[in-house]
Amino acid sequence: MRVELVTVGDELLLGDTVNGNAAWLGRRLAERDVEVTRSVVVGDRLEEIVQAVRDGLDRADAVITTGGLGPTSDDLTRDALAKAAGVGLVRDPALERRLRDRVAAAGRTLQPMALRMADVPEGARTLANSAGSAPGLCVDLPGGPVYVLPGVPFEMHAIMDEVVLPELAERAGLPEVARRTLRTAGLWESVVAARLAPVEAMPGVTLAYLPDPAEVRVRVTAAGDDPAALLAEAEGRVRELLGDAVYGAEDETLDRVVHRLLAERGATAATAESLTGGLIGAELTRMPGSSATFLGAVVSYATGLKHRLLGVDEALLAAEGAVHPEVARQMAEGVRDRLGASYGVAVTGVAGPEPQDGRPVGTVYVAVAGPGSPTRVTRPRPPVPGPGDESRAALRRMTVVYALDLLRRVLLGLDSEPAAGDARNDREEKG
Amino acid sequence: MRVELVTVGDELLLGDTVNGNAAWLGRRLAERDVEVTRSVVVGDRLEEIVQAVRDGLDRADAVITTGGLGPTSDDLTRDALAKAAGVGLVRDPALERRLRDRVAAAGRTLQPMALRMADVPEGARTLANSAGSAPGLCVDLPGGPVYVLPGVPFEMHAIMDEVVLPELAERAGLPEVARRTLRTAGLWESVVAARLAPVEAMPGVTLAYLPDPAEVRVRVTAAGDDPAALLAEAEGRVRELLGDAVYGAEDETLDRVVHRLLAERGATAATAESLTGGLIGAELTRMPGSSATFLGAVVSYATGLKHRLLGVDEALLAAEGAVHPEVARQMAEGVRDRLGASYGVAVTGVAGPEPQDGRPVGTVYVAVAGPGSPTRVTRPRPPVPGPGDESRAALRRMTVVYALDLLRRVLLGLDSEPAAGDARNDREEKG
Repeated sequence: MRVELVTVGDELLLGDTVNGNAAWLGRRLAERDVEVTRSVVVGDRLEEIVQAVRDGLDRADAVITTGGLGPTSDDLTRDALAKAAGVGLVRDPALERRLRDRVAAAGRTLQPMALRMADVPEGARTLANSAGSAPGLCVDLPGGPVYVLPGVPFEMHAIMDEVVLPELAERAGLPEVARRTLRTAGLWESVVAARLAPVEAMPGVTLAYLPDPAEVRVRVTAAGDDPAALLAEAEGRVRELLGDAVYGAEDETLDRVVHRLLAERGATAATAESLTGGLIGAELTRMPGSSATFLGAVVSYATGLKHRLLGVDEALLAAEGAVHPEVARQMAEGVRDRLGASYGVAVTGVAGPEPQDGRPVGTVYVAVAGPGSPTRVTRPRPPVPGPGDESRAALRRMTVVYALDLLRRVLLGLDSEPAAGDARNDREEKG
Repeated sequence: MRVELVTVGDELLLGDTVNGNAAWLGRRLAERDVEVTRSVVVGDRLEEIVQAVRDGLDRADAVITTGGLGPTSDDLTRDALAKAAGVGLVRDPALERRLRDRVAAAGRTLQPMALRMADVPEGARTLANSAGSAPGLCVDLPGGPVYVLPGVPFEMHAIMDEVVLPELAERAGLPEVARRTLRTAGLWESVVAARLAPVEAMPGVTLAYLPDPAEVRVRVTAAGDDPAALLAEAEGRVRELLGDAVYGAEDETLDRVVHRLLAERGATAATAESLTGGLIGAELTRMPGSSATFLGAVVSYATGLKHRLLGVDEALLAAEGAVHPEVARQMAEGVRDRLGASYGVAVTGVAGPEPQDGRPVGTVYVAVAGPGSPTRVTRPRPPVPGPGDESRAALRRMTVVYALDLLRRVLLGLDSEPAAGDARNDREEKG
């Protein structure tokens, strides 16, 4: 099965918008082993759209278009489809009713122009849109089907996943699939991939790695007679092979996991930050309602403030500088104590681009102080960064993940350490 | 002048990479009034690249390709160009020498495969690459020139700006241009555009608006006989019409401006944050060397900590809740005092999605305490956000900008207020 993508919109040619829709469609199709022959962007011009759709069907078995389905005069995709099919546009009474109902429910008046959205090429099927008002369309041309999707990403995603992919799969006799994304922290992508080689070898299972600084999401796709059972088996193997590094699944980000674990224990957290400058606090306040489990942060960027605001030993700071495991420990205990939190999380380190206090860029210490057990201090080993502002940003971002991940491990009572204690992680990346 | 873009790479079709190169090229060409006919992505397949280049020259006066110029066997663009031109590849001695010198200088051995990067289609011109090792190429086909650029963005940008755009301009008789980006804070895009209507009307001047939360960058392009003089005139008008809202130019971000103003005054800053959770501190520590002018932050997310850590009046908090102008004032003065900074910056507000203490989402107070003048407190008016996590993130991001912008105004001794006091800003956006 080969598909060609046609994305419609002057804003894409002008570069005002980056073509995220084409990338998303490419990933979805690749997961199902559907080949994308070309991905073409055309402007809001009738003839161009018609030509791109025809060219696409010359090369591929189907065409998917996005964009140009709105109500304004520069939305020409439905006209282009009618022209390519050699038919006229007809008003779909069900679509018209739905439009009128929506507008009435919102207490507004229907603009005559908006009725364009109820027009479809004669003989076209409408594709249900569970996420918005504009349905997708499918027109069967002699060269193959043309699926016409709106440009609004979440609407396009819904129609693609719920209607188009299942239909393409059936047309091409593609096997049924089940899919799940597992989230890991602290391991490098190459290490995750090496460990998961046995899962890669399972028939019907494919893995995709989606790396972020200090995190890797693993998307597991299972295809076959009973994809749900195969997925469960594959997921079990992944969890076995990656162990504690798997912190969540799907959209459960690390901050959400930490909030959940804190809430389950009736506990709260506070952070003491240096090189991250407040990023850990910012991460722990992304989620609405986070004030139930996050109290606050002290950013002691100037070395002297580590003593004044957090009670870190002045002699220690004078002797060792700010980047030292004992400083991290005292910061975590200090912020826990002074803010009255159940858990104190602290980071200190060198974000670069210059060394600090004689420590090289990338030296980072993370500490978590909590009730009932000694304070944990680890030294994660981020990949050695290149020069410049971008590596500084990446190091800061990785430090946020290391800190939240250590808090997670402490909350779960795990002795394991993230990247820090993982000699294999260290060795393989450098080797 | 019409140009077609051909971007080469399986990673683009598979969606592993979003096509930022096409967007960048589209913007650059649009600024010069060059029309982009289509933007086509093809995979790493020789015949596909050849066909896309030929199709492009059927529609346009020139083709620009990016990607597929590296040293590995899936880098096929130079082979495709040779094939499209009906010539062979020849090794360019100057390129070979440069490659060998670079590798030797780095103390490495040249891989035989890497020599592919010294091969060019017979008769092709090389285009100087000031940013990297792979030069661009230009092949003149019967339908027009094909410019072949590497896929690495900063190398592609360098060759495009230094060689291709000037050459296209000369071929098409496009006027010379000069270009400058001015950065504004606190005004909405629609307001900036409305105020700049007189500049839009200047012959030879075009404006592009690049909006971020609470910031708008205005790119001024001047074309004509003396573009530098025209640009200077247009820039003067823009600064006149936007006044204090213009905080910098080109890559001088707001945090850099604030650090510079602080350093010029031998002053330091500290922040007291609530809804931003540490984002202002994070912003003020993005830049290397920021410890010279930024001391630290107190994130008093829990209401009680505003009293304990910053000395905000308990009775005030009990009576008014945390979101109140007087709370913002006391936070700013408290953090200035307790951290020993010259300036204290504070924010408190409701990021949503739920109201807090009876205040609606979007209620935000920003305060700056400093030496020698009373503490300033303003209430910015962010656009009323929609529901959900994304608006929460946007509101937090806008609050960072409002806070840094108020600090900037205080440092400059300006009485003006950002979005807060700008009735026109308010009225026009809502109208």
